[in-house]
Amino acid sequence: MLRDIYLESTPLREALSEWTERLNSEGLLRPLPSETIKIIDSLRRVTAEAIIAKISSPFYHSSAMDGYAVRFVDTFGASERSPKRLKIGEQAVYVDTGDPMPDVFNAVIMIEDINIVKCPLTNDLSANSSEEYIEIISPATPWQNVRVIGEDIVATELIIPENQRIRPVDTGAMLASGHTEIKVRRKPKVAIIPTGTEIVEPGTELKKGDIIEYNSRILGNIVSEWGGEYIRYRIIPDNLKELKTAILDVHGKCDLIVVNAGASAGSEDFSAKALKELGEIILHGVSIKPGKPVILGLVKGKPVLGIPGYPVSAFITFNLFARPLIYKWQGLDVREPEMLKAKVSRQIASTLGQEEFLRVKVGKVGDNFIATPISRGAGIIMSLVRADGFVRIPAMSEGIGAGTEADVELIRSKDDIENTIVCIGSHDNALDLLANILKKRYPKYSLSSAHVGSMGGLIALKRNEAHITGTHLLDEETGEYNVPFIKRLLSDKKVLLINLVYRQQGLLVLKGNPKKIKGFEDLTRQDVVFVNRQAGAGTRLLTDKCLRELGILEKDVKGYEREEYTHMAVASAVLTGVADTGLGILAAARALDLDFIPVAKERYDLAIPYEFFKTDMIQNLIGIIREDEEFKRMVLGLGGYDISDIGKIMYED
Amino acid sequence: MLRDIYLESTPLREALSEWTERLNSEGLLRPLPSETIKIIDSLRRVTAEAIIAKISSPFYHSSAMDGYAVRFVDTFGASERSPKRLKIGEQAVYVDTGDPMPDVFNAVIMIEDINIVKCPLTNDLSANSSEEYIEIISPATPWQNVRVIGEDIVATELIIPENQRIRPVDTGAMLASGHTEIKVRRKPKVAIIPTGTEIVEPGTELKKGDIIEYNSRILGNIVSEWGGEYIRYRIIPDNLKELKTAILDVHGKCDLIVVNAGASAGSEDFSAKALKELGEIILHGVSIKPGKPVILGLVKGKPVLGIPGYPVSAFITFNLFARPLIYKWQGLDVREPEMLKAKVSRQIASTLGQEEFLRVKVGKVGDNFIATPISRGAGIIMSLVRADGFVRIPAMSEGIGAGTEADVELIRSKDDIENTIVCIGSHDNALDLLANILKKRYPKYSLSSAHVGSMGGLIALKRNEAHITGTHLLDEETGEYNVPFIKRLLSDKKVLLINLVYRQQGLLVLKGNPKKIKGFEDLTRQDVVFVNRQAGAGTRLLTDKCLRELGILEKDVKGYEREEYTHMAVASAVLTGVADTGLGILAAARALDLDFIPVAKERYDLAIPYEFFKTDMIQNLIGIIREDEEFKRMVLGLGGYDISDIGKIMYED
Repeated sequence: MLRDIYLESTPLREALSEWTERLNSEGLLRPLPSETIKIIDSLRRVTAEAIIAKISSPFYHSSAMDGYAVRFVDTFGASERSPKRLKIGEQAVYVDTGDPMPDVFNAVIMIEDINIVKCPLTNDLSANSSEEYIEIISPATPWQNVRVIGEDIVATELIIPENQRIRPVDTGAMLASGHTEIKVRRKPKVAIIPTGTEIVEPGTELKKGDIIEYNSRILGNIVSEWGGEYIRYRIIPDNLKELKTAILDVHGKCDLIVVNAGASAGSEDFSAKALKELGEIILHGVSIKPGKPVILGLVKGKPVLGIPGYPVSAFITFNLFARPLIYKWQGLDVREPEMLKAKVSRQIASTLGQEEFLRVKVGKVGDNFIATPISRGAGIIMSLVRADGFVRIPAMSEGIGAGTEADVELIRSKDDIENTIVCIGSHDNALDLLANILKKRYPKYSLSSAHVGSMGGLIALKRNEAHITGTHLLDEETGEYNVPFIKRLLSDKKVLLINLVYRQQGLLVLKGNPKKIKGFEDLTRQDVVFVNRQAGAGTRLLTDKCLRELGILEKDVKGYEREEYTHMAVASAVLTGVADTGLGILAAARALDLDFIPVAKERYDLAIPYEFFKTDMIQNLIGIIREDEEFKRMVLGLGGYDISDIGKIMYED
Repeated sequence: MLRDIYLESTPLREALSEWTERLNSEGLLRPLPSETIKIIDSLRRVTAEAIIAKISSPFYHSSAMDGYAVRFVDTFGASERSPKRLKIGEQAVYVDTGDPMPDVFNAVIMIEDINIVKCPLTNDLSANSSEEYIEIISPATPWQNVRVIGEDIVATELIIPENQRIRPVDTGAMLASGHTEIKVRRKPKVAIIPTGTEIVEPGTELKKGDIIEYNSRILGNIVSEWGGEYIRYRIIPDNLKELKTAILDVHGKCDLIVVNAGASAGSEDFSAKALKELGEIILHGVSIKPGKPVILGLVKGKPVLGIPGYPVSAFITFNLFARPLIYKWQGLDVREPEMLKAKVSRQIASTLGQEEFLRVKVGKVGDNFIATPISRGAGIIMSLVRADGFVRIPAMSEGIGAGTEADVELIRSKDDIENTIVCIGSHDNALDLLANILKKRYPKYSLSSAHVGSMGGLIALKRNEAHITGTHLLDEETGEYNVPFIKRLLSDKKVLLINLVYRQQGLLVLKGNPKKIKGFEDLTRQDVVFVNRQAGAGTRLLTDKCLRELGILEKDVKGYEREEYTHMAVASAVLTGVADTGLGILAAARALDLDFIPVAKERYDLAIPYEFFKTDMIQNLIGIIREDEEFKRMVLGLGGYDISDIGKIMYED
């Protein structure tokens, strides 16, 4: 059934069922054969057989008390009125807790319940010729104070069933039931072949055009977490013959072959060709975003996945198409991801006809979970590092409206999410330091920042979508920072304003200032390209104020329309020649070794609604801001900061 | 501050804070020193430093499209009316997606948006002397279709903070940002010393009095799951000198020393003595149950935990007193266990003054979570294997009333619990097979059985505490099985009755029937001890019916008051000499190689309320009962079963 397919656009659900049904019909979706291993090495492996107790535990009757073992029949009739005596050595034998019961005995009388009496054999009272007895005043019941055989485990009893992931207690119970070795599923093995002429090993001296290979480590480590193991093949250049050789080379050593990159339809994409020549393509192209150009194939009875090169595409397609196999091969069911209902903070448009996997940050603000979309580029690995989960936008949808409730597939625990301070607003490098110190001092808590500008931050506070906002909004009329804006926007909330820093804003230029830029007046020059900040950013307001004061029109500034969301992005644009200058803070200039032309000193505060200010996590954050010497030292080390008011309440309503 | 303390009864909260505060004051609760490892080996390790990007990613501008790289200034003025031509090789250069941008260019025009035109240099039209141009009809904006440097990661940016457990995506992002090695926390090392003269290695030829050592593997594997590693010392006999030598031997090789067993106050308990002679005891004895005789000590600047020998006590005390250390040492916070509110199915009395850790099974029946207490013995490792969680009964409480809502600390996932069929009722060996086959065919689902007898099962159905009930209740009046009881007890529910098996009940006796027991009439003999089933069990009703028919009084049957909860427990009691005979099914006799004196053939059905019958998990179970050939074969293999009506609906209301 060799089909000649070339970048279709099969709906995900169809693609998944075609893939698994095909593998199933080839007998490739059965649990893998078992292997015998020692129980002491079996943690997290999966049983390939029901573990049945070989022996009982305990496997002998043992005393559960310190006392005397007796035959219960010998105790009949004992009472306070007529105590009964049993001869030590014959009718009663001393036992410690845990001692095996002497053969003919079947009850234990606690040491506290007996008297030892000596009866002389004759009238001669010398110890040698006396006999000792225990004296009891109530009869024993059969097997009282005895741990009988099988009290814990009865031989032939089921300890754990087949297809169970082994936990620490299971190892103990299996050992207790007489086993030392058991059959577990062989670990599924995934061979990952990184391909691409431009791909280089991490640690290589980099030259332009090189791309560091790291997808194989992400995918391989995911396999480890699922319970399998991975073989990482050496990097194969874009060469059909070498790729075919590599596939055949790993063919006998693994259960699944993954070819990473080259899955698309470009002139240097050889995966499809290799698969067609060596075996067959089941399907090429799934209507998901990112991750469309995935290839599902079969080579001589072995599944082969061709997955796209962009890291997010690789991550998503691998999770979709490899996970069911790795779990089935272990005899396990794929666990459903933890789901959470969250309000989406802003409108998201999505392409009709493609199921989109939107990465979101999730925060719990008050009683609501808020999902904020993050970067959608398939090439942005940091979007996965920062993500708390995915929202799937169905193929038949054009997007999600702001405020809509969406289902989030979590990739971080709900617990972690609930312990995360959501900071939305203006960006400052000191916030990154704060995030790191918070995690260092209080590992339980995280600070997550989204950079939407001061104004956007205050609006997020108003909508109950953030706990705190970094803001540096100058009211031109009063000359006052932040307070007038809070009064205007957040009149219905009790908000505190805490100073973080005063900081220097200025124009960032390349080291040595090659274009001799002196100030905003130079932005109209033909040879000067500017990079701007997004609307609503305090820095954008400052830019516009400076231009207005000089009577410069926006349209006369080249690059005015190119917007970045952080000071560091502006600095990077200048460093890398995307722009000649942009407005930013001194710390950003220092970080990337740029020159800095001062423009203004401004106040950067944190606005915090009182209801959140009281919480343990925000109190700890404030504690760091106010008292942590390492934090203050690091902030000053960034350059351009005045921390004379750090932690001070600037306003309280 | 050497204190001479001997088995106190310190409240848990106090003990915990004394322990951690003391270690803290000795400087022993700080994160461990770091070690440098390769990122490719760093999965699940914990960062010991903030990981800051060394390089940007991408670190060069690259084309995001197939097309022509241009200088955007050269494109000014292009329009449909006056297209602009740029000379290929000088003003425009072809680039593939991902190619580095040629040096002077700063925009890419998609291949779809241009025309290639040839302009002869002279009037000579030969190809060699012509020049090629691209023709465009709209201007380019700066950096359009270019992946600029730092689009993913900007050098100096925070990749992941200190104290983060490394996930697969983190390894990728760290590699992408130019690192190959990072600093992580050294793994905490726990040395576990098993002690006890009666303790033997698993696999040893066992003799009476031996106890298989397995606690060290449970505790060690728990350490692995927390992110640490363990050293398991050889078994040390109850000998003070050898124990002291062992402690000193591991002292330099680990961060925590655990001495398992010998923590109590008996004559052979040397842990406390060893600790006092080598260092000091911080605390001995905590008012918890199980786990009271725990020892918290310090030897030459190293924490030492003396924990009790019973597996459940060891598990609980180790979790309480070791976990905070292992987490703190990694720079992590102890994660709170997942909690669940569940209705406790029956009343539990508890000792005043001791905080009890009650193991419970949890099931979701309808909309309610139901917690059912399981065996409370500290020696029952299977109680941990079977448990879904713990309910803590506070020291100041005398117990929990039936139907009360309790907080359960889960040790199994909520997901697993929701996919568990709760079967409460009569026991039959075929149920164990069914549990195993269900897990084999549908790894997602589990069958959990509690054995409370047929009557108890029907009452559980009535109270919405079970999904299904195994029942074999004979109505003496009508001679009918089960139906009259369902009509009487479950009149408010629509219930289906499905046959599982017909089975043989009989008296179990030792192989060869040494006491020559022929029937119930022999139970009055002086030399015959009987073992009974619990009240409410179908088998108990059958026993009582047989005795009544013979006119035998309960008081004349020795052992009548000793009750077991399963057929296998009765069989085990006969096999091990606890009793001479008891009533049970043929399968139990076969399993333990006993002789069997047939008494009656009876019908064993499953009662299932219709609302549960419809669910996917029960439908799959019924599917196995009706159609699974392996299951049927295994049931017949047990012996004594007639499966002619297996899966048949016997009653439906």
